[in-house]
Amino acid sequence: MAASVLVINGPNLNLLGTREPDVYGSITLKDIEDTVRTYGDRLTIKTDFFQSNVEGELVAAIQNAAGEFDGIILNAAAYTHTSIALMDAIKATGIPTIEVHLSNVFAREEFRHHSYISPVATGVICGFGAKGYVLAMDALADIFDV
Amino acid sequence: MAASVLVINGPNLNLLGTREPDVYGSITLKDIEDTVRTYGDRLTIKTDFFQSNVEGELVAAIQNAAGEFDGIILNAAAYTHTSIALMDAIKATGIPTIEVHLSNVFAREEFRHHSYISPVATGVICGFGAKGYVLAMDALADIFDV
Amino acid sequence: MAASVLVINGPNLNLLGTREPDVYGSITLKDIEDTVRTYGDRLTIKTDFFQSNVEGELVAAIQNAAGEFDGIILNAAAYTHTSIALMDAIKATGIPTIEVHLSNVFAREEFRHHSYISPVATGVICGFGAKGYVLAMDALADIFDV
Amino acid sequence: MAASVLVINGPNLNLLGTREPDVYGSITLKDIEDTVRTYGDRLTIKTDFFQSNVEGELVAAIQNAAGEFDGIILNAAAYTHTSIALMDAIKATGIPTIEVHLSNVFAREEFRHHSYISPVATGVICGFGAKGYVLAMDALADIFDV
Amino acid sequence: MAASVLVINGPNLNLLGTREPDVYGSITLKDIEDTVRTYGDRLTIKTDFFQSNVEGELVAAIQNAAGEFDGIILNAAAYTHTSIALMDAIKATGIPTIEVHLSNVFAREEFRHHSYISPVATGVICGFGAKGYVLAMDALADIFDV
Amino acid sequence: MAASVLVINGPNLNLLGTREPDVYGSITLKDIEDTVRTYGDRLTIKTDFFQSNVEGELVAAIQNAAGEFDGIILNAAAYTHTSIALMDAIKATGIPTIEVHLSNVFAREEFRHHSYISPVATGVICGFGAKGYVLAMDALADIFDV
Amino acid sequence: MAASVLVINGPNLNLLGTREPDVYGSITLKDIEDTVRTYGDRLTIKTDFFQSNVEGELVAAIQNAAGEFDGIILNAAAYTHTSIALMDAIKATGIPTIEVHLSNVFAREEFRHHSYISPVATGVICGFGAKGYVLAMDALADIFDV
Amino acid sequence: MAASVLVINGPNLNLLGTREPDVYGSITLKDIEDTVRTYGDRLTIKTDFFQSNVEGELVAAIQNAAGEFDGIILNAAAYTHTSIALMDAIKATGIPTIEVHLSNVFAREEFRHHSYISPVATGVICGFGAKGYVLAMDALADIFDV
Amino acid sequence: MAASVLVINGPNLNLLGTREPDVYGSITLKDIEDTVRTYGDRLTIKTDFFQSNVEGELVAAIQNAAGEFDGIILNAAAYTHTSIALMDAIKATGIPTIEVHLSNVFAREEFRHHSYISPVATGVICGFGAKGYVLAMDALADIFDV
Amino acid sequence: MAASVLVINGPNLNLLGTREPDVYGSITLKDIEDTVRTYGDRLTIKTDFFQSNVEGELVAAIQNAAGEFDGIILNAAAYTHTSIALMDAIKATGIPTIEVHLSNVFAREEFRHHSYISPVATGVICGFGAKGYVLAMDALADIFDV
Amino acid sequence: MAASVLVINGPNLNLLGTREPDVYGSITLKDIEDTVRTYGDRLTIKTDFFQSNVEGELVAAIQNAAGEFDGIILNAAAYTHTSIALMDAIKATGIPTIEVHLSNVFAREEFRHHSYISPVATGVICGFGAKGYVLAMDALADIFDV
Amino acid sequence: MAASVLVINGPNLNLLGTREPDVYGSITLKDIEDTVRTYGDRLTIKTDFFQSNVEGELVAAIQNAAGEFDGIILNAAAYTHTSIALMDAIKATGIPTIEVHLSNVFAREEFRHHSYISPVATGVICGFGAKGYVLAMDALADIFDV
Repeated sequence: MAASVLVINGPNLNLLGTREPDVYGSITLKDIEDTVRTYGDRLTIKTDFFQSNVEGELVAAIQNAAGEFDGIILNAAAYTHTSIALMDAIKATGIPTIEVHLSNVFAREEFRHHSYISPVATGVICGFGAKGYVLAMDALADIFDV
Repeated sequence: MAASVLVINGPNLNLLGTREPDVYGSITLKDIEDTVRTYGDRLTIKTDFFQSNVEGELVAAIQNAAGEFDGIILNAAAYTHTSIALMDAIKATGIPTIEVHLSNVFAREEFRHHSYISPVATGVICGFGAKGYVLAMDALADIFDV
Repeated sequence: MAASVLVINGPNLNLLGTREPDVYGSITLKDIEDTVRTYGDRLTIKTDFFQSNVEGELVAAIQNAAGEFDGIILNAAAYTHTSIALMDAIKATGIPTIEVHLSNVFAREEFRHHSYISPVATGVICGFGAKGYVLAMDALADIFDV
Repeated sequence: MAASVLVINGPNLNLLGTREPDVYGSITLKDIEDTVRTYGDRLTIKTDFFQSNVEGELVAAIQNAAGEFDGIILNAAAYTHTSIALMDAIKATGIPTIEVHLSNVFAREEFRHHSYISPVATGVICGFGAKGYVLAMDALADIFDV
Repeated sequence: MAASVLVINGPNLNLLGTREPDVYGSITLKDIEDTVRTYGDRLTIKTDFFQSNVEGELVAAIQNAAGEFDGIILNAAAYTHTSIALMDAIKATGIPTIEVHLSNVFAREEFRHHSYISPVATGVICGFGAKGYVLAMDALADIFDV
Repeated sequence: MAASVLVINGPNLNLLGTREPDVYGSITLKDIEDTVRTYGDRLTIKTDFFQSNVEGELVAAIQNAAGEFDGIILNAAAYTHTSIALMDAIKATGIPTIEVHLSNVFAREEFRHHSYISPVATGVICGFGAKGYVLAMDALADIFDV
Repeated sequence: MAASVLVINGPNLNLLGTREPDVYGSITLKDIEDTVRTYGDRLTIKTDFFQSNVEGELVAAIQNAAGEFDGIILNAAAYTHTSIALMDAIKATGIPTIEVHLSNVFAREEFRHHSYISPVATGVICGFGAKGYVLAMDALADIFDV
Repeated sequence: MAASVLVINGPNLNLLGTREPDVYGSITLKDIEDTVRTYGDRLTIKTDFFQSNVEGELVAAIQNAAGEFDGIILNAAAYTHTSIALMDAIKATGIPTIEVHLSNVFAREEFRHHSYISPVATGVICGFGAKGYVLAMDALADIFDV
Repeated sequence: MAASVLVINGPNLNLLGTREPDVYGSITLKDIEDTVRTYGDRLTIKTDFFQSNVEGELVAAIQNAAGEFDGIILNAAAYTHTSIALMDAIKATGIPTIEVHLSNVFAREEFRHHSYISPVATGVICGFGAKGYVLAMDALADIFDV
Repeated sequence: MAASVLVINGPNLNLLGTREPDVYGSITLKDIEDTVRTYGDRLTIKTDFFQSNVEGELVAAIQNAAGEFDGIILNAAAYTHTSIALMDAIKATGIPTIEVHLSNVFAREEFRHHSYISPVATGVICGFGAKGYVLAMDALADIFDV
Repeated sequence: MAASVLVINGPNLNLLGTREPDVYGSITLKDIEDTVRTYGDRLTIKTDFFQSNVEGELVAAIQNAAGEFDGIILNAAAYTHTSIALMDAIKATGIPTIEVHLSNVFAREEFRHHSYISPVATGVICGFGAKGYVLAMDALADIFDV
Repeated sequence: MAASVLVINGPNLNLLGTREPDVYGSITLKDIEDTVRTYGDRLTIKTDFFQSNVEGELVAAIQNAAGEFDGIILNAAAYTHTSIALMDAIKATGIPTIEVHLSNVFAREEFRHHSYISPVATGVICGFGAKGYVLAMDALADIFDV
């Protein structure tokens, strides 16, 4: 395949579809990953997936993507707003990274309006639910010029 | 056609492609509009376009979209950060509105990190240049379920 | 007639009665203007009306009121919170100006609690819907000592 | 009579007309109460009056109004800016309460711009001197639909 | 009896059970006092009760507890957030004081998150309704080592 | 047994009793757990215990409590003040959660006064040392109505 | 006598000499009043004294001083930092008022550094214990030009 | 002529000389423009003039100056403090722009101390009344090296 | 003599009596020094005087007072609000230091309300003009127990 | 000559032309002084010059200008942002003072955007390099009406 | 050996020498550890090393150092600015800890200027690259008095 | 010798060893200078020393170091937190400068946490007493590559 993307999901996203359906809908994380994989196949972009509740493991996932993947789609969830370590990892690896959020974070609590990821991300997509990951794939395809 | 979208661009975006190419690229606003129109045709979404440097004319454009369009793509540019009037217009008309920015506003000056549009928008897409409008079309198509 | 008042309404107030009835009720701007005109007639106060979504046109309306009207009733809506230009226009013309808001702005978002109009207004009336304009007429009548 | 209103005045308002005439005019609190009583009679609204310099007595007055009065006109003076207890009392009794100030508080010191009363009041009227109480009576009459 | 506790309740708590039942439940202040008295009897802790809407009377109650009571349970309600005088009284008397709130103040408005009582209290218990007073009795019993 | 509670302790609480005895006393975490277990037995509440220094493992512990436990007692220690991830986990699982702190956090450094846990907790108990956990058991028993 | 001064002491100052001697010394309020009275006699300044824990009573005391006393010495204690009502009373009566504090408030907690009294006082004296009242008498004598 | 300058004046400056003479003097905008034109002639700098109360028209004026003028003198008045759109226009056109204010904005209200124009202007001249425009002409002549 | 005091005056106080008489009166610095010397003689307190516009020379004056003087009266004027160096000097020498200001700094600009001197001073006296120095002498006499 | 101006330069400006030429150009302070002297001669304005790195010496220079010079041109450099003493000196002497900066301070670090000089200066000129001093001479000539 | 030191490195420092060489140079973490080990040998200080991207593992490493090591050198990288847990661990273990940063954090983004480690560290060394660890060894040797 | 270093000490450091020994130890400034000189000799680095309480003299010392010294060790003491002039001097001379503090400034008052020196220094060393100067010498030796 022409390119590859690592999709990283942060804390509590493993609960997707089972909890707070009024905020995030009933789609599970596996559903999203399946959709993205299928969509990636269509774009001839290889996809891989990682989820962790541990900030340091997310940092490591980004580090390990260096040399292995051409792009990262990152939904760091709660760590978006508190993790300078993730910011540093993205900057250090230099891989194009797209920040995705299922909900429109700007319509939620004030403390969710600031992101340490955004300034080092290529771009930000939020508020479109699972569709946001697909849009991010398109955005990366555009960047990879696949 | 099944649905319709009004693409609204704010102050100074009429200069696109002629000024500050290092920030926004060499694509003109007309190029973007043509791309979006063609893409809309493919999605069977009718598109129309409006640009103004005057805040109140942008407010009126949003107001007038009520009953005429199913969705709005709004790049309010500088007014994003200062216009409560635009926020009120979006809330009043209730049309699904997607906020788009060409550049990654979160990687720029602090005062560009706050948006009065975001809390009332369906979602936000920024940092992907002209491609962001196309992604917004896809997002609206997903919402319209075309 | 003994005195005259210009009633100026700002952005999105042209939508009154057609949008967000849960916040502003179902009365249209024309209804309000009719009520104020009738009430003014009773007080022998001539009334005139202006609405615009454009900040600069509202500024001009205030400027032009100088020498033409004895008082202004101003509902600057969203521009209340962002327009130093309106503040300067009121100060420059020196016409007694009453700030009116349909809703109780202090019970809404934080950014609606600050007004650039208030410090240069004669007084403020908010939270009484269309009735607020009538109260403002009474207040001006009291000032004019009609 | 069809309805009843309790007019509550806070700290230092007992000095009205005797002190700082340049800010509040020469009208005494009794003058204001007489005017409001007469005006209430005309509107067939029964009026009663209470003044105290003690925050807790003002709290009690609001509490005791429950079941006794249909509306409250409250000029909490200095406690406007510092008393969460008054805010809680208004919320607890649920009686429509109109916040009145003689002077335009927004044209005075910064610390007078914030009010704990406003978010739980029906509306706010300020800057019209004694006339403000009469306007508040009208506003309540409108609410009572007398 | 082995020990004694003064239970002090602040402004508007006299309305308990009659107002805003969705926030505080339908239990009256007398119900709470009865429950605490009975519970105190079981712990062989003598209890006494005081409620006032007047900040200065609450200050006096705390002062007078010195030498009379071994512990204080204080729900200062609105004064929690504004009264340095209560803070000083607690510090001056030196009696172990437990701060209690019926509701979870941290889930309410921002201005209820700060307490002048907490830094000088032995501990804080909030969010458990009337049960909070009973827990405070247990906590004091533990401190008294009854 | 009628109900079950998971007691979760955060970073550095494994050091209890061995370090900083002037702040936390000489009781070890095991002592606290034994006390809570015994007390739970008396209340016919099954108890289980978890401690970790890793934020993500605490998140997982809360997630895993869903369907397994009826209540959570959480002393998130330092993460109380920095972890939105824990906040999200509590909200997502929806299990009644009581926030406990050994010391009175409000009498310590400013940055310990804010908690991301409190707004989503049922209630907060702090300042009573190990006794706080027992009070939390009582509070949960009251909620479970055991 | 040639002039008269009212010495007003605020909340918790009635405890002087009995509580927190490390902060305020062992002198009682009566000791201070006796010292000031004697000193006043020497300066042929008549003195009177008032203490209350109730903010509104302190407000009234200042109001009542109008026409009765030539100067006020005010130690508003905790209310110094929270009472706009006291500020307004001083401004309204216009009597020269000297703000006194026993301790150096600027060497204590941050929230004791701001005073609503200071901007309307003639001057401020703090940090000299009971001696501060005597210095204030001298200052007033200087102002009265006794 | 060797060079050309566009002099742009913002909201309410059309009132110059007719309003608030104590702040701005009695000179009209036309007087200023005449003075600048004459002075320009002497410097062999062609001058043109534009005034608008509409932010978006000022934005357009700056945009249109590109390729037409060698320098801009901009007194954006109230928009100085609120308009990111003007800032963006100046940056986009890249024409040397001198910010001028008639009054010393730093001696006025706090909100007039911040300018969105200054960071993208070549320099700032304020406090010299109409003379400021002449100084700006000299500054541009120096930059043009006429 | 029994004790000695160094009176230190900061920047611009050498201008006293010649400039801004509406703020500071017409008394010169020499007048003040003469008054204090005479008053010191009466108290059998030796006095010496120092004035400088240079922060570092004021620092040195305080340093040199160590072992030479029993007390310092310091009017640091503008440096009061900006000089940590003076604060450190006072703390290092440990000599009882009284902060004096001629005007009531709390009735002036916001930036004059904060003092780096106050937290390390014994006490503060302000608003009494030249009389403040005499009061400070009395305060020191009280401390020296002359 | 008809008038006289003292040009005062603050800390590090003695390095001009030898350091950081990319920020300030290669012109030395002597070059600037020569230019200003020549220009002054042409305007029949006598000029004198002073530079110091010591804040207190700059204060003294301003003080000494009283009665000797008709105007001051002050580039206080770093002290612009930190010196209340300089502000007080300008206010005390009352000589028309023009604040000049070589660079556009508003395009530099945030802490250079605030000036203690500006509110007491006649006007401000910045961003024009050495030319700014010449413009300031013109501005003073205009004020002197030479 | 006479003493022992644990060198702890935080998130992303495992990437040293492979990423962002313009910020951190080309030296790898292993190079640094080798240098420190060799230098430790010379000082007869035993050294051990730990790196983790997981905050909780760093907390544990500090905890485990108690009783095992005489000093800690800690470069917590991104966690420096966000981890109260690390602060608590250092305070709890009481081992002399030196905070080291490769780059000068104060010359980088604002959010890197605050450290939760610094207040509980013995000292801070930053800006010297790998050399900083060697300096920290010297500092510890000095403390150990090896 | 191969290189040279100027060691500059700021206000109150001349008191070292004689004052506040609990904070700074009993070592005098001369002791430190002797230690550094001896250590410099060993490193074949020529050392020279300067101390002043006057900010402007410290500025001059840094200026004069240009061309004379290869490095500066600067302990600006109190001026660290207030002097932009020192910052500018360091930037202007461009000599590698190491900021040293005897105490750990981050464990002291909040206002000592910010340094104007740090952003322009090569690195920072604090908390190690006199040893910090020796470490700074080592750091410079490393930079000089002696």
